[in-house]
Amino acid sequence: MHFEMICTGEEVLSGQIVDTNAAWVAQRLLSHGVEMHSRVTLGDRMADLVGAFRQAAGRAQVVLVNGGLGPTEDDLSTEAMAQAMGVELELHQGWLETMTAFFERRGRPMAAVNRKQALLPAGAVMIDNPVGTACGFRVQWQGTWFVFTPGVPHELKKMVNDEILPWLMTDFGVHAGMPLHRILTIGQGESHLAAQLEELELPDGLDLGYRASLPYIELKLMQRRPVAEAALDKTVATIHQRIGDAWVGDNVVSVAEAVHQLMLQRQLSLVTAESCTGGMVASQLVDFAGSSGYLQGGWVTYSNQAKQQELGVATEVLEQHGAVSLQTAQAMAQGARSKLGSDLAISITGVAGPDGGSEEKPVGTVAFALAHASGCDTQLLNLGFRQRNQIRVLATTVALDMVRRHLLGLSPIAEYGYLRRVATL
Amino acid sequence: MHFEMICTGEEVLSGQIVDTNAAWVAQRLLSHGVEMHSRVTLGDRMADLVGAFRQAAGRAQVVLVNGGLGPTEDDLSTEAMAQAMGVELELHQGWLETMTAFFERRGRPMAAVNRKQALLPAGAVMIDNPVGTACGFRVQWQGTWFVFTPGVPHELKKMVNDEILPWLMTDFGVHAGMPLHRILTIGQGESHLAAQLEELELPDGLDLGYRASLPYIELKLMQRRPVAEAALDKTVATIHQRIGDAWVGDNVVSVAEAVHQLMLQRQLSLVTAESCTGGMVASQLVDFAGSSGYLQGGWVTYSNQAKQQELGVATEVLEQHGAVSLQTAQAMAQGARSKLGSDLAISITGVAGPDGGSEEKPVGTVAFALAHASGCDTQLLNLGFRQRNQIRVLATTVALDMVRRHLLGLSPIAEYGYLRRVATL
Repeated sequence: MHFEMICTGEEVLSGQIVDTNAAWVAQRLLSHGVEMHSRVTLGDRMADLVGAFRQAAGRAQVVLVNGGLGPTEDDLSTEAMAQAMGVELELHQGWLETMTAFFERRGRPMAAVNRKQALLPAGAVMIDNPVGTACGFRVQWQGTWFVFTPGVPHELKKMVNDEILPWLMTDFGVHAGMPLHRILTIGQGESHLAAQLEELELPDGLDLGYRASLPYIELKLMQRRPVAEAALDKTVATIHQRIGDAWVGDNVVSVAEAVHQLMLQRQLSLVTAESCTGGMVASQLVDFAGSSGYLQGGWVTYSNQAKQQELGVATEVLEQHGAVSLQTAQAMAQGARSKLGSDLAISITGVAGPDGGSEEKPVGTVAFALAHASGCDTQLLNLGFRQRNQIRVLATTVALDMVRRHLLGLSPIAEYGYLRRVATL
Repeated sequence: MHFEMICTGEEVLSGQIVDTNAAWVAQRLLSHGVEMHSRVTLGDRMADLVGAFRQAAGRAQVVLVNGGLGPTEDDLSTEAMAQAMGVELELHQGWLETMTAFFERRGRPMAAVNRKQALLPAGAVMIDNPVGTACGFRVQWQGTWFVFTPGVPHELKKMVNDEILPWLMTDFGVHAGMPLHRILTIGQGESHLAAQLEELELPDGLDLGYRASLPYIELKLMQRRPVAEAALDKTVATIHQRIGDAWVGDNVVSVAEAVHQLMLQRQLSLVTAESCTGGMVASQLVDFAGSSGYLQGGWVTYSNQAKQQELGVATEVLEQHGAVSLQTAQAMAQGARSKLGSDLAISITGVAGPDGGSEEKPVGTVAFALAHASGCDTQLLNLGFRQRNQIRVLATTVALDMVRRHLLGLSPIAEYGYLRRVATL
């Protein structure tokens, strides 16, 4: 189906509001196999709206118009549609009564301006809005259905879910769509991944896409037509094999989510000992409900004093090897693990910059240690010359990936491509 | 100036990414008086891109194109422009060398596919990208300048700030708007703030705008014409007075930034003791370079065991009052403060949900304590029925605001409007 969207409103166009409605509509319809073909965002100018309706008419099968159905002067969508079509606005008596009752229930009189919201282009079909005063409507012109929806997010969502999707399913044979398989990677650039997957033979109907969402690059396997499960599984396995240690999870939004799921399955306990990440590892896990099932606690040992007093890092270790060293990371992890008798402890200590780097340990140098029942794995990585926060996000991701790999029985020390390993103990 | 934007990429169109680039560009240019006239969002289809370029040509003065400059097959922007114009792609030797050096510095070979990123439409002017492999370019066609920018947000921002805005200033007489004064607030809705400021008399040339950026609502004072400093100061002071404790900072991006600045000025030390925020308070401070100057460390005491062992919270306190209580928060803060001999300690313990709530302490109940040389301030707030992460973000903001208010000599216990205080000690 050729589907387009027209978003209206100065506040969306000018960036005062980030247009989450557009993203929501696109995802909701994509889940029913309907791809958005294009999207136009316009301010509150009558001529622009009329022009956009005229351009889409005859080209698209369905155009979803969002916004501009309110009672004020800058709400122009309905009148613009009537102008484009060259028809009159007609009063929808049923909606006028619904609105009047809506205000009565709230104990306030309906303002005169609201009457405008019951005026629809001649020939339009009203679409109910049980949670607001702006009804939607759909109207067919030059073979194209224009579907008008309110800009208030929860009103839009209810209308799409309750009215518009069922209509698309009945009248256009749209149905809930194929699942998307997402493979999360770190440490390889998009071009490097593409080169590794260049000659990959995809089953018919399966497309491979890339999405950069730092620190990740996500590989997306999209089913254009239904693909046999075995063929999909085989493709996923081949991709895993080709990209090697860059793979950090399937169908998760972050490594933290993968760790969260695995920790709950394994019924082990975890503590964190963080220096340059400053609590980000713990916080990413606490994001998920149920993290109290395994996360006992954590330390942000930002100063040397905290490392010594709280985690028992020996003065000699700090003096001999420095705060950013394999030895300090190891002592932090082991100290943290013993304090609450945890199964696992992960530690991070590094130079996040912009100051504090040296020739031997430039900005981006980060030491990690994972202490567990049978020992302690350590690595010193050079995460490259990046901004402070990017280094912290990358370090958090690597730390969580060490936990993930350990829980899967893999070596916590991975080959990450552009995240260069300097040393291990 | 007639300015339009074309956003490309399946992930933006399909809503997998909310298009924050578009909002950022609109706001950044608006700060220089340039309004976005319209915006088209397209997927990775050659014909659609060519069509959009053709439509904008001759109509707009400047079209900013975002995305589609990567090395992979679905990056089509450059070729689409060449096709639209009917010109060849030409190798930009300088950018090829820059890219080769870029990869060399990172100790990896440049993949063959990256060569594509040095091909520009004949006649184009290359735009430098010092932080990525996708150079930008601008090319004039039918009187319209098309300016191509990378989709990676920090690359886009750097290019707009360092290259494109200066070019617009030189060639189009665009100039930076007057400084914007931003007032950060929490705990009041936009309509409530608007009501409090309704009869505010603004000096000539000064506009008041609102921007919701959760958990904040930002008030923006925009100078359409130069406004005398004294008049601006007076307006700011009046706004502060009217909005009361909702005010949490001027010209800062977050309360964390305000705390960071104040802590460095006051030369005091701070530790954090976090339960439901799980390290978010510490992490927000560590985001700022120089935070090691005051942040000694922190504890994520997620389990009762951690609260007892690490911070010395008495078993009786936990048993009698529960983990989410003023008493536990107080014991956490005092325990944390004494452990490293810090000047200040802030603690947070709450029910972030979705489970764990009770009738007495529903989801959203959070206890805070700030321990300092002359005592300990506590409060128990009901942050309302919100999603887990929203509650954690709000709790982090309130905790940091307690520190901020203490440093300014105000009571840490504020009246936040919709953030309801249940009790204090």
